[in-house]
Amino acid sequence: MSKPIPDIVIGRLPIYLRELSFLADEGVPVTSSHELGKRLGISAAQIRKDLSHFGEFGKQGTGYKVSYLQEQLRRILKVDHEWPVALVGVGDLGRALAHYAGFVNRGFRIVALFDDDPNKIGQRIGDLEISSTDRLAAVVQERGIIVAMIAVPAASAPRVAEACLAAGIRAILNYAPITLKVPEGVLVQYIDPVTHLQRMTHYL
Amino acid sequence: MSKPIPDIVIGRLPIYLRELSFLADEGVPVTSSHELGKRLGISAAQIRKDLSHFGEFGKQGTGYKVSYLQEQLRRILKVDHEWPVALVGVGDLGRALAHYAGFVNRGFRIVALFDDDPNKIGQRIGDLEISSTDRLAAVVQERGIIVAMIAVPAASAPRVAEACLAAGIRAILNYAPITLKVPEGVLVQYIDPVTHLQRMTHYL
Repeated sequence: MSKPIPDIVIGRLPIYLRELSFLADEGVPVTSSHELGKRLGISAAQIRKDLSHFGEFGKQGTGYKVSYLQEQLRRILKVDHEWPVALVGVGDLGRALAHYAGFVNRGFRIVALFDDDPNKIGQRIGDLEISSTDRLAAVVQERGIIVAMIAVPAASAPRVAEACLAAGIRAILNYAPITLKVPEGVLVQYIDPVTHLQRMTHYL
Repeated sequence: MSKPIPDIVIGRLPIYLRELSFLADEGVPVTSSHELGKRLGISAAQIRKDLSHFGEFGKQGTGYKVSYLQEQLRRILKVDHEWPVALVGVGDLGRALAHYAGFVNRGFRIVALFDDDPNKIGQRIGDLEISSTDRLAAVVQERGIIVAMIAVPAASAPRVAEACLAAGIRAILNYAPITLKVPEGVLVQYIDPVTHLQRMTHYL
């Protein structure tokens, strides 16, 4: 029986993985908790402690092999394969997400677009055609999608989230500025720029 | 001498404030830590403990007056007035942010747009004209702006961040998927959808 790993530790792993990708791009083959910590503004001790939850990734005094640590973090975060993602809401933000090149190679690919607006349904963004949100359950089930991004206005978000859950979605990245009610076991992460801004202004 | 308030507590206040706004919109005059907690998926005890750092906001057994608690949280988060914000990078995402109606009434207003692309400079989005990033320092100082959002590609972000700091920006909301190096005292918050997605897939 191993102890569950604190969620805050899991939350830092994507940051480590991202920084390792930059190191790899720069052609750096080996790094250390000191170098990573300096680049990330996190203490070396914290990084070593976080990684120690998952085993031994480096040899004392020789540092971490970048490619090996990337591989291990990808495995732990389960992004050693690509997750198909449904995007609901193709307004300005949804369009920006649909065009965003930063998902691929990091474990995600938007494979289905949905919107309620009859003028948008049938339009294409890149390779993808925008479908009616009514088709969500059918498409999600057919494609085996369990990850969704919601980029609709706050007022529509609860309804859209319910449709996602009914369709079998198990992880939601919610851009609507509203807290979603989801059953135990469904994961939700929130992106609301104002909450981030307000968190900073307190200190100004 | 009062103890410093943990940053994680400060981080939850914007969520409380957002939920209080929904309650106010619904015409609810008084709420409780239980009601707030139920709506937010946070324990009532946690909410009471978080708020107790700042004094006494409700009477035992009678709950919190919504408008009063909103007012107090706005004061603590310093969003009882509006912060002018500079947005650097007017690609798809920047455009979506420039159009986003959710900043106003929550303490922020984008008042200046910057981009490096000569084809974009001089274009208008709503009331605002896109300026050359070269004009950043002049505009930021003239307008007294200390909060910026960066929505440029990762490769340009370090240079743009340096220009922001040199211009006197003290808080940055960074959408570029890269960790910024900033001096002590400068605040940075990050929005990278992939880190949020990867944090969830670990559990799937």
